[in-house]
Amino acid sequence: MTCQELRESVCRANLELVRRGLVIGTWGNASGIDRAAGVVAIKPSGVGYAELTPEKIVLLDLDGKVLEGTLRPSSDTPTHLALYRAWNELGGVVHTHSVYATIFAQASRSIPCFGTTHADHFHGTIPVTRSLTPEETAGEYEANTGKVIVEAFSGEEGRHPDPISMPATLVAHHGPFTWGRDAHDAVENSAVLEIVAQMAFGSIQIAPGLQPLHEFLLDKHYLRKHGSNSYYGQK
Amino acid sequence: MTCQELRESVCRANLELVRRGLVIGTWGNASGIDRAAGVVAIKPSGVGYAELTPEKIVLLDLDGKVLEGTLRPSSDTPTHLALYRAWNELGGVVHTHSVYATIFAQASRSIPCFGTTHADHFHGTIPVTRSLTPEETAGEYEANTGKVIVEAFSGEEGRHPDPISMPATLVAHHGPFTWGRDAHDAVENSAVLEIVAQMAFGSIQIAPGLQPLHEFLLDKHYLRKHGSNSYYGQK
Amino acid sequence: MTCQELRESVCRANLELVRRGLVIGTWGNASGIDRAAGVVAIKPSGVGYAELTPEKIVLLDLDGKVLEGTLRPSSDTPTHLALYRAWNELGGVVHTHSVYATIFAQASRSIPCFGTTHADHFHGTIPVTRSLTPEETAGEYEANTGKVIVEAFSGEEGRHPDPISMPATLVAHHGPFTWGRDAHDAVENSAVLEIVAQMAFGSIQIAPGLQPLHEFLLDKHYLRKHGSNSYYGQK
Amino acid sequence: MTCQELRESVCRANLELVRRGLVIGTWGNASGIDRAAGVVAIKPSGVGYAELTPEKIVLLDLDGKVLEGTLRPSSDTPTHLALYRAWNELGGVVHTHSVYATIFAQASRSIPCFGTTHADHFHGTIPVTRSLTPEETAGEYEANTGKVIVEAFSGEEGRHPDPISMPATLVAHHGPFTWGRDAHDAVENSAVLEIVAQMAFGSIQIAPGLQPLHEFLLDKHYLRKHGSNSYYGQK
Repeated sequence: MTCQELRESVCRANLELVRRGLVIGTWGNASGIDRAAGVVAIKPSGVGYAELTPEKIVLLDLDGKVLEGTLRPSSDTPTHLALYRAWNELGGVVHTHSVYATIFAQASRSIPCFGTTHADHFHGTIPVTRSLTPEETAGEYEANTGKVIVEAFSGEEGRHPDPISMPATLVAHHGPFTWGRDAHDAVENSAVLEIVAQMAFGSIQIAPGLQPLHEFLLDKHYLRKHGSNSYYGQK
Repeated sequence: MTCQELRESVCRANLELVRRGLVIGTWGNASGIDRAAGVVAIKPSGVGYAELTPEKIVLLDLDGKVLEGTLRPSSDTPTHLALYRAWNELGGVVHTHSVYATIFAQASRSIPCFGTTHADHFHGTIPVTRSLTPEETAGEYEANTGKVIVEAFSGEEGRHPDPISMPATLVAHHGPFTWGRDAHDAVENSAVLEIVAQMAFGSIQIAPGLQPLHEFLLDKHYLRKHGSNSYYGQK
Repeated sequence: MTCQELRESVCRANLELVRRGLVIGTWGNASGIDRAAGVVAIKPSGVGYAELTPEKIVLLDLDGKVLEGTLRPSSDTPTHLALYRAWNELGGVVHTHSVYATIFAQASRSIPCFGTTHADHFHGTIPVTRSLTPEETAGEYEANTGKVIVEAFSGEEGRHPDPISMPATLVAHHGPFTWGRDAHDAVENSAVLEIVAQMAFGSIQIAPGLQPLHEFLLDKHYLRKHGSNSYYGQK
Repeated sequence: MTCQELRESVCRANLELVRRGLVIGTWGNASGIDRAAGVVAIKPSGVGYAELTPEKIVLLDLDGKVLEGTLRPSSDTPTHLALYRAWNELGGVVHTHSVYATIFAQASRSIPCFGTTHADHFHGTIPVTRSLTPEETAGEYEANTGKVIVEAFSGEEGRHPDPISMPATLVAHHGPFTWGRDAHDAVENSAVLEIVAQMAFGSIQIAPGLQPLHEFLLDKHYLRKHGSNSYYGQK
């Protein structure tokens, strides 16, 4: 992939966020990475989607040094970079303020898996991060946002989700981050997260003590799409 | 009806699901059957709606043997086939993850008949299936999904709905299946189910102990559209 | 107004219901009356909106005798006629199953006036009818639906709304009827009712014991638009 | 700015309200002011948006004297003027009946800051006014509406919001007013208010005792966009 192709792909992914109703105003951004070249492409800060072109996409290295582009990168760039550095498998990252996912994030509530729509895409409870401390907020806020996301996936083996089978997190008081194989896959995960959040919101309204799916059903659905013996879609 | 006509009809029904906002991504499928020929036509698995053409629709017999087509049929095919085998009157089957119907399915709640919108189309409470056992889930999962749907319509005479006057069921933890005279009628029933679910969701929010319609009003509405003395529409 | 003009006006009003998202499928109808000629024009029963043309609009007299047209009139015709006969001021009647108004109707709940959006258009609580008895349901059901609507506006002077300042009612378990100077005014009132119902639904979710507006504020808003000293709009 | 430019700008802002789904029917208005010339431009009363042209925009002075235009100004004009007179920094004012903001206004509930979407635009709790007295309602109602808005921003230093960092208020029982640097900025604030209200509505449904953001996070977000050391967007 050339830098120009990466830019075009990331530009399209950002515009796709708007087309799918996942961002309002300029509140969202998608990035992608070329691992071989060590180049990250991200939306410029505060630029309206109507004016977004591949040329305006900013290229940086994994330390945040701008390689090409005269515009400032998204203010959320340090969060994206923290995720790319933590997890080698990531090819794209997306941040939105989509309505239902943000409703859960604002309430600092994770989203348990209540149905197969969720289980087909996310292998268990979609986690919510802890709140940032005053010091973390006053300091490198956006980098620390990345830190608490990574924390939500750390700790004792088998007790926490892994970022491949759980490509989404809600940042407490803030909103969702998702990721994927590339920027478009991350956009797709944002879209699914939003609908899964809406359905969970509705189900707990009519069944307040609702329990998550039994593990055997969760695994069945997740693995029929994503496991080594998956049988969904075309070979 | 020729095989080509069946394919075209089923292709249009699948696209109609998208147009009506009943499927998101690739989460939905419509099928139709030519009873005389014993041929079922169904959406291929994991194919995007934008690329769907009549040529891609898969043709099978009632045992699931592919008759024509190089693509794999929908992974939900065994559920569709189980319904066609159980009930001779069915000409079409639809599965979606439409939002409000899925909200009820996730909560394992049936949808009582709270109003005439519901009574005009579904003759009583829209049932929810029992949960599948771990064994049923690990085994022929999709066929067993069909089995629990059929179970919801079985048992003591007069105590359970019949599939003609109740062309819809919620599969617990999963989502709705509907059926009808043909694929288009099944799509129509999916659309009505979604709006009926939304209205029921709202009514129980503002009237938590709400009781279903009295039987005389349920019968009046259902029968003025569907009974032998129906007087709705043109002769 | 000629019969042709009445037909065209009523046809446009029916199509306007669809354009504004107030009817789904064929669940709605608008009618208009030429008082001088004693002619009522109404949508034919079960005809899709896509095929509706002025020529298909049915003309009847106030007793329900078809004057022109080969199609059956809407099955709700006796309800429309009952309202025209009860209230001379009415020039148009509309029936829909719009979502939020139907949510209240299904719950047999009236809609108190919680804000100025409501007060600008409806002078007080939007009433809900009593339930029909088994006998009324088994008998002339649609005419009896008209009867219970009229009942909601009857009784002791000053204790009940009058149909001019309250051009809407919810039929219990069913849905809304509205009316107005002509079919278009009735459509407008249907649209306002739906949004007022949605806002009331939301407000009682976040403020369960919410009290209606004080009378002085209700009167102020209603009368600044509709009173003899109104000062809204252009002279 | 010429009077013609002001008219065109205010006309566009009014049409933008419709395009963004913030007004229904004719229930909304945007105005702008040319401070140097002392000229306010506002939508005419009760004129449909489809017929709105720059020529129909009414020009007044700050006392409400019509300078140009044959149409009556919006009946809410005295409210707009009261805000322009109270706060010199205002360049535009907008009033809508947008659904979720009105749901809070009808419930006389302010909107606490539950997340960063809110904190990015409004520096704290979006206030709700006190109710008008019977005398204030019977008297100069629209001017008194402006008076209670201004009151919500008055009193002991540091205990009340200031209109620059809090460009929105809910008028109790009524709906939102917003303002900004010009009419377009006020429209933008109306749009953000609506989405922030929807998210707050959702979050308190799933977390009834939810507390507002800690001040350090509120300040961080508000100031990264609006403070003297802001680092959002392009320089």
